[in-house]
Amino acid sequence: MVKTVESTKNRVEVGSILESSFQSMLDNEFSNSKKIVMVDENTQEECWPYLLTIFEGLEDAEVIVLPSGEENKVMEVCFQVWEAFTNYGIQRGDLIINLGGGVITDMGGLIASLFKRGLRFINIPTSLLAMVDASVGGKTGINLGQYKNQLGVFAFPELTICDPIFLKTLSEKELISGTAEMYKHAIISSEEHWKTLKTLSVNNVSSDVIYNSIQIKAEVVDNDPTEKGLRKVLNLGHTIGHAIEGFFIEDHVYTHGQCVAWGIVVESKVSEQLGHLSKENFNEISDVIRDKFPPMTIAKENFDVLIALMKNDKKNNSSKINFSLPSKIGAVLIDQQVDEDTIRKALEFTFIEN
Amino acid sequence: MVKTVESTKNRVEVGSILESSFQSMLDNEFSNSKKIVMVDENTQEECWPYLLTIFEGLEDAEVIVLPSGEENKVMEVCFQVWEAFTNYGIQRGDLIINLGGGVITDMGGLIASLFKRGLRFINIPTSLLAMVDASVGGKTGINLGQYKNQLGVFAFPELTICDPIFLKTLSEKELISGTAEMYKHAIISSEEHWKTLKTLSVNNVSSDVIYNSIQIKAEVVDNDPTEKGLRKVLNLGHTIGHAIEGFFIEDHVYTHGQCVAWGIVVESKVSEQLGHLSKENFNEISDVIRDKFPPMTIAKENFDVLIALMKNDKKNNSSKINFSLPSKIGAVLIDQQVDEDTIRKALEFTFIEN
Repeated sequence: MVKTVESTKNRVEVGSILESSFQSMLDNEFSNSKKIVMVDENTQEECWPYLLTIFEGLEDAEVIVLPSGEENKVMEVCFQVWEAFTNYGIQRGDLIINLGGGVITDMGGLIASLFKRGLRFINIPTSLLAMVDASVGGKTGINLGQYKNQLGVFAFPELTICDPIFLKTLSEKELISGTAEMYKHAIISSEEHWKTLKTLSVNNVSSDVIYNSIQIKAEVVDNDPTEKGLRKVLNLGHTIGHAIEGFFIEDHVYTHGQCVAWGIVVESKVSEQLGHLSKENFNEISDVIRDKFPPMTIAKENFDVLIALMKNDKKNNSSKINFSLPSKIGAVLIDQQVDEDTIRKALEFTFIEN
Repeated sequence: MVKTVESTKNRVEVGSILESSFQSMLDNEFSNSKKIVMVDENTQEECWPYLLTIFEGLEDAEVIVLPSGEENKVMEVCFQVWEAFTNYGIQRGDLIINLGGGVITDMGGLIASLFKRGLRFINIPTSLLAMVDASVGGKTGINLGQYKNQLGVFAFPELTICDPIFLKTLSEKELISGTAEMYKHAIISSEEHWKTLKTLSVNNVSSDVIYNSIQIKAEVVDNDPTEKGLRKVLNLGHTIGHAIEGFFIEDHVYTHGQCVAWGIVVESKVSEQLGHLSKENFNEISDVIRDKFPPMTIAKENFDVLIALMKNDKKNNSSKINFSLPSKIGAVLIDQQVDEDTIRKALEFTFIEN
């Protein structure tokens, strides 16, 4: 059974793609359009054959293989794709299908949105992270140097289909990474979702738990589509998490999810230090993350770089560092200006003392 | 006196910038924001000192000088600006002021819209063309190879100010170029505007005639902000005009306005050939353009390239060539599929037989 998260600018269908409205879109809106499928080396091998076997409308599709990995989420790659679009004679009415993880959906969405001021696109996220995080909100983006998603636009796909069948193509490491955003959703607004996640086995993630996470995110995004206020709750774990990810970007040791998970721990500690979060709640969050995610080490001499990276985070309106901090499991405070000292103490507590 | 064109997503003020709401925006919405002013070598010298003398709020602004000319409306230049933004520590709440012609407002708008998924910007067009054309509609863009505005997004400035004082910095050639879009606006929807333009001296363009042109464009755009239908009337002269401009892009001999003006003549001829436009109306359009614009020559052996360029125009949904054709002075038909032969005949009539 396909469950649909329907909101102002998003339509996300969760369940088997066979029962989704993908077929009818190909048959109707896009019957006369050229189709371009964006994949990476992995989804080309693991996911594309599955779609090609099922959907006749895709047999003439052009397949563009993007190099996988965060370090390839850059303008140079976009350029090559735009040249290919020009060679294929792609026009405004044509369709881009992004089949892959967050790199593919973020970059593919941007590539589509910029070409001729906007081609339509359908996202088929294949990683757990892309399903529960990138599938709503209309964020597209690429990196600029060390800065993640420094370039991008808000643009919404015609449809997003999250089919758990593609999760079978993922390693346990990737699956664990994907759960970080789900824990975030739970801390933001649902103690019940938190309880479900505590007993979750990553090798058996159901449509229902994916649907619940997406539903939480969609409600937040709907109330604030261009990130002017409320939506900042979704930054939980990311001010620290993005800095960690930027710092390690060349080493490929930590996944996005790991960085966010540890970002949640540090930010929860910040919140506890400032008196916004009870010690009990902090311990609960910290214990669950430490239990579910592999450990992380950062030496004290690197804290300066982390702080510098945080200051450049695009959510900051001034030189102060702006956080979204949990006040309990199920609620978050936005626009919390935190001084460097408090952040350093929380980093120290998380990465050195424990 | 400042006249305001107010529409859903546009606010354009026409008249002296001294009486516009620019000062109050600097004092209120942007009092705590960093300001970046985008200029080219010409507007840095001719226009920026004027603003800097008048508006105290601009004294700490960073000035970024972009190389002038259509051939510099490219991603490489955007990249350099984004690196400068990063170095200046530009954040989401900061303000970009685009001070220049269409290259600056198109490219500056795109640069602002992509950085951190969207900085706010104010446009101060300094050329007649940018005032009457680029000031409404939210089009931003850069070129990709030979293809004009192949990359871009729809994004709207906080405010656009069209102050005729800046027209004094333009050559007669540039002023004539700017009138082409005004003739287009007249043919699209106002015989009265057409009559005014026939007696216009380019060295004395009033706020009123600029306002009237913008008003026509704003009404069209308002009814169709993302160019799905009606707005196609604005393509008049541009299917041919863009092809001509692309063809000559390296030679720098013809302005955008000249290309559009001759595009209007060829497309009017196409319309007459197809029986949509009376011979009398065609002659009226052709005579006025021939009288006001410098002549243009294109050899017959280059028609193949022009046709190929038209086929790649972003307004085409298929391999056929799609036109907006005048049916009289004051009305346009959209979505007219025209065969190559008819186009070749009109090109021949315009550039060879006459």
